Amino acid sequence: MSYPQEFQGIAILDHKEYLHPKKVNFPPKVFGDHDVDIKVECCGVCGSDHHFAKGNWGDVPKPLVCGHEIIGKVVKVGDNCETGVKVGDRVGVGAECFACLKCDRCKSDNEQYCEHQVWTLSKAYEDGYVSKGGFANYVRVHEHFAIPIPENLDSVTSAPLMCGGITVFSPLLRNGCGPGKKVGIMGIGGIGHMGIMLAKAMGAEVYAISRSNAKKEDALKLGADHYIATKEEADWDTKYKDALDLVIICAGSLSDIDFDRLPTIMNIGGKIVSIAAPDATEKVILNPLGLLGVSISNSALGSRKEIIQLLKLASEKNIKPWVETLPISEAGVGEAFGRMDTGDVRYRFTMVDYDKELSN
Amino acid sequence: MSYPQEFQGIAILDHKEYLHPKKVNFPPKVFGDHDVDIKVECCGVCGSDHHFAKGNWGDVPKPLVCGHEIIGKVVKVGDNCETGVKVGDRVGVGAECFACLKCDRCKSDNEQYCEHQVWTLSKAYEDGYVSKGGFANYVRVHEHFAIPIPENLDSVTSAPLMCGGITVFSPLLRNGCGPGKKVGIMGIGGIGHMGIMLAKAMGAEVYAISRSNAKKEDALKLGADHYIATKEEADWDTKYKDALDLVIICAGSLSDIDFDRLPTIMNIGGKIVSIAAPDATEKVILNPLGLLGVSISNSALGSRKEIIQLLKLASEKNIKPWVETLPISEAGVGEAFGRMDTGDVRYRFTMVDYDKELSN
Repeated sequence: MSYPQEFQGIAILDHKEYLHPKKVNFPPKVFGDHDVDIKVECCGVCGSDHHFAKGNWGDVPKPLVCGHEIIGKVVKVGDNCETGVKVGDRVGVGAECFACLKCDRCKSDNEQYCEHQVWTLSKAYEDGYVSKGGFANYVRVHEHFAIPIPENLDSVTSAPLMCGGITVFSPLLRNGCGPGKKVGIMGIGGIGHMGIMLAKAMGAEVYAISRSNAKKEDALKLGADHYIATKEEADWDTKYKDALDLVIICAGSLSDIDFDRLPTIMNIGGKIVSIAAPDATEKVILNPLGLLGVSISNSALGSRKEIIQLLKLASEKNIKPWVETLPISEAGVGEAFGRMDTGDVRYRFTMVDYDKELSN
Repeated sequence: MSYPQEFQGIAILDHKEYLHPKKVNFPPKVFGDHDVDIKVECCGVCGSDHHFAKGNWGDVPKPLVCGHEIIGKVVKVGDNCETGVKVGDRVGVGAECFACLKCDRCKSDNEQYCEHQVWTLSKAYEDGYVSKGGFANYVRVHEHFAIPIPENLDSVTSAPLMCGGITVFSPLLRNGCGPGKKVGIMGIGGIGHMGIMLAKAMGAEVYAISRSNAKKEDALKLGADHYIATKEEADWDTKYKDALDLVIICAGSLSDIDFDRLPTIMNIGGKIVSIAAPDATEKVILNPLGLLGVSISNSALGSRKEIIQLLKLASEKNIKPWVETLPISEAGVGEAFGRMDTGDVRYRFTMVDYDKELSN
């Protein structure tokens, strides 16, 4: 059997063996009348794929098919689709593949916070089917989450925008990033490097914030106007006192962030937004008067409307995340996770060569 | 000696004896050319006076003259005063009596966050003089912090607006409290009771939030539209899910607040602002994903501009904090602090009868 009865992908079958994934066939979810099927062209590898694969967020159902920065071609469209999506369209899918679209959150363009949402991987639909991501020849998702890709964007470099990109773009947009604003991007990894490019493209003065100076040259090339190395400049907090209107924390973990000092580099009214999704056991410990005039919040993903805005910006400003390609295969996915273990990625992997490895 | 060489007040001379303050004479600060002298008519008693008196914030210089919700008449005006203040004016003074008025914070109406600020009590000026508050016959402050009181406002009931009132009004104002907004006031004490009145006067739908139902009747009389008793309604967080746009935490301590559940009653984009000034040892411990789409911040006091707005609102909407008067005297100040120890105040003390007890 093959498509549409079965999809084929590269899956984790055992968290301990996350560096040795296996090629598997699996049944897709039941096709809904608002669903679309997408033949995957390429797929970015996000930090949360890595967390899922290693079992950092618990022992999840197998096969675990990761991948949620997907770009591909629409090959089938449900009878009641109404977004205008058509067979042949090139679309992108991020970390969310379903939401109720009826609740107040959905209706206010906050479907990423819908209580009934389904993530693109490893989350159960109402009928119990566990979602499977883009390390596969096909994905089946609700049309709302299949977003048209502007023609001039390259699939391989644009794939990471679908999750990493929107995750940093949404809080930039919602917190006023733009001309005249001073915006910090803290943590220069897969998401942070896109954060620098996007904040710059939105017109802000950009401060890249990292522990060491190791990424200084890259950050300046990416568009940062300033660079702060918190472990190498002892007086960073006094030197940049009151400097910033907004900081997006893109670090993978919050445990290393000095929440006593960080607020001092913020203006009164300044906003700190964390998009980190760390281990469930981490806690943020704040001095109760440590946020005088400064707020902190968490943000997750972005809405369809915001993804469309992001892709328009990327198209207009020629934004290209820095991507290294790897072949979609047991070895290729294993290599991606192995190199992410040691941070050996600048700054995002995109899995490619789907036609060579997976059935059509 | 007496005024202007010496002021006379009721002072704490030993934190252990905070229930037995003593009448003392003391020299005022050197009169600056932007200073005004105010003959005190009455003065509210704030939770921070109580903290200072008990030594909760450390062993501070003595005599400690508390009181920073002051209303009185201007009796002397510095040569370079330029706010228009005149001898004979009735003015109010809150918790701040000096700021540089030159820094970016001051120039952006954030003088309450000025690095050079002096609080109205127990804070050293640049020359080392330690400020002394309104439990005294006179106070000497920078003109910027002597705010005209609208004619129709009663001094005794308006005094608490000068610190407690502005402390809750500023974050209400800065975070969009107004018609169409759902605003929670958490902690129904001295400040919280004013928060309910002010949020209502600003046009919001007001949710009073307390642990028990003990203050329900009062809260509704004060203007609350809803009442949430977090220790008596087991399902308060699901019942009021996504209900609020803004919550001001007016509790004296944060240790009893459930920061895992509180964000669930906030809308996406909702704001939690704490004005609590708890013991220095308290910490706020957050789940790193506990603030999805919701922000938390601290706020302190308010600017002169905001105090003027507050007094205008109080004047137009006839806002009268619920006040119990006590005579300014060793016994009266001792009674105030003693009753605050057991929470026996609904909802604010104002010290009065200055002419009877203190020299003129």
